[in-house]
Amino acid sequence: MNQKAKINIKRYENNPIITPGDVKPSRPEFKVECVFNAGVTRFEGDVLLLLRVAESAISNDKQVVKVPYYDYMKGEFVIENFDRNDPANDYSDSRYVKTPKRLYLTSVSHFRIARSKDGVNFVIDEKPAMVPANEYEMYGIEDPRITLIGDTYYINYSSISYITGVTTCLATTKDFKTFERKGVIFTPDNKDICIFPEKINGKYYAFNRPASAEYNRRDMWIAESPDLLCWGNHRYVMTARDDMWDNGRVGCSAVPFKTEKGWLEIYHGATKDNCYSLGASLHDLNDPGKVIARSTVPIIKPEEDYELYGFFGNVIFNCGVLFENNKIKIYYGAADTVMAYAEVDIDEIFKNLGV
Amino acid sequence: MNQKAKINIKRYENNPIITPGDVKPSRPEFKVECVFNAGVTRFEGDVLLLLRVAESAISNDKQVVKVPYYDYMKGEFVIENFDRNDPANDYSDSRYVKTPKRLYLTSVSHFRIARSKDGVNFVIDEKPAMVPANEYEMYGIEDPRITLIGDTYYINYSSISYITGVTTCLATTKDFKTFERKGVIFTPDNKDICIFPEKINGKYYAFNRPASAEYNRRDMWIAESPDLLCWGNHRYVMTARDDMWDNGRVGCSAVPFKTEKGWLEIYHGATKDNCYSLGASLHDLNDPGKVIARSTVPIIKPEEDYELYGFFGNVIFNCGVLFENNKIKIYYGAADTVMAYAEVDIDEIFKNLGV
Repeated sequence: MNQKAKINIKRYENNPIITPGDVKPSRPEFKVECVFNAGVTRFEGDVLLLLRVAESAISNDKQVVKVPYYDYMKGEFVIENFDRNDPANDYSDSRYVKTPKRLYLTSVSHFRIARSKDGVNFVIDEKPAMVPANEYEMYGIEDPRITLIGDTYYINYSSISYITGVTTCLATTKDFKTFERKGVIFTPDNKDICIFPEKINGKYYAFNRPASAEYNRRDMWIAESPDLLCWGNHRYVMTARDDMWDNGRVGCSAVPFKTEKGWLEIYHGATKDNCYSLGASLHDLNDPGKVIARSTVPIIKPEEDYELYGFFGNVIFNCGVLFENNKIKIYYGAADTVMAYAEVDIDEIFKNLGV
Repeated sequence: MNQKAKINIKRYENNPIITPGDVKPSRPEFKVECVFNAGVTRFEGDVLLLLRVAESAISNDKQVVKVPYYDYMKGEFVIENFDRNDPANDYSDSRYVKTPKRLYLTSVSHFRIARSKDGVNFVIDEKPAMVPANEYEMYGIEDPRITLIGDTYYINYSSISYITGVTTCLATTKDFKTFERKGVIFTPDNKDICIFPEKINGKYYAFNRPASAEYNRRDMWIAESPDLLCWGNHRYVMTARDDMWDNGRVGCSAVPFKTEKGWLEIYHGATKDNCYSLGASLHDLNDPGKVIARSTVPIIKPEEDYELYGFFGNVIFNCGVLFENNKIKIYYGAADTVMAYAEVDIDEIFKNLGV
């Protein structure tokens, strides 16, 4: 595969824009490992990022792997210790501890707010905006997407728990101070939900990415809703393509936005060996389940050091964009470690899509 | 484990009540392998079973395994041939052909109507009521549940396809002659959906059994709906129990019915080595997500030859019951091959539940 992204996309020269060192740990016993995959919106004139902050438990002994998670029965965070030399456990993927009995995550994620006037220099809150709080969120809350409808910001996110798997939950806010949880909106395993910002023919829509264990599928689907809480009429939308940049799996990434040519979705695709890039797909204005066009070369793929190396390298992944003055402003997680920024003209995307 | 079901349950003396030989194949090139896991209701005074009929493609050469499925692009059934001696393929489970590229089912299921005046002697339709018809149903439609609400029968069923995994679809009928498809109501993998027969505090409810690939979960959940089409507020209800008859996995089986002590669900539990039995769970009348009691010994488990031996032996599985005159009339699939019948007084179930 030798697909060169010839698109004219401009990375910010001082990337990355936010790194783990910029974020204060939420607890003294935690260390910030990653700040990435932020939800994006404008709030009170600022660019507001809802950062995913992944923290590990500090271990002073290299032979002891500490795993933090939220114990919903106790109502507090607990830390379990694992012996790195225990041959029964698998530590080969930096993100997991796989024991014979249970899968653990080596970090637990929460959400933190960052604000910027110029879109690249951010002031980051000292304290979390949302932290794990129930049995669905024991292993953390991840990858938020923000959709503004009316005066309410709808935030959906992946909730991870060994009891309930990977579900998607909804929360709402009007002020980014208080957040109201609205429960689980998609059953496990389903994540990468992107809610459209307006009704289409009287219905709300959301892209989603259910996983079929039995048939080994991880594809993009679309769902409809009367109220944003209950979802149905699920339809299969698109899948990985052989011999393309997205031959491993695909999922929705950014909240879609409207253009004169259709709904535009910036989605993520991975190769079979887990290189994550971003591409675009264009969807019918009246029936967004219909795909009009799709990137045959990615609009951005891992090339810079901060994209190639990190907690989980070779990854560009995003949860939102701003579409302003015909520019797509992409805030993305790089190497599952830092936040970076790039921008691209909408016409470049249309050229990339051949429309 | 030595749990003897001491409950007084009465199997019909001439079980099984329907066998594959009683069912006419839907096509000349097909053979009926199994008739099981029927949806159950009363219609025009009769007991009506919506049978799941699983058919294989007839092979005259033992070295050739023929796999039938519905090709939605062609709009017709096709048959693929596999060499039984091909070491790349796995034929060890009678239900599957596992090739390196794809998982196939060795049979394809449709629905057939059977009617009875006395509840045990059935007249079976010559032709199918519903057959696979779209991309979600390529590998068949399975395990229907029937819920009567108002004058409409709501039929939900598992739709199997290598493209879309295991989804649950909804169809409606008023006459059991024409069936209107209402689309996918739960994303993959999710099956064993049981819709409650009435609204509770203004909302419809359904038990369901999503599968988490990542965290290896297969548990009972509950969902709410304003319209039976869109579902949300998903909540985790109950899981397998160590050292019990349901220590492998659990799922909802029969459409729940109301008693003075709560909503009663006849659910299936499997041991870790795939012995499927039925038990009962009692749920709060106002909040059916709350479990009041649960069988510590099954109400029925595989003991008879027709339950122990068959296409997939050691299985009792049901999709519906009739609750009439304080009797629970259980129509169940046995050994994934035949339909059988048993009945039990509600008081026996309450005793079993200790309520």
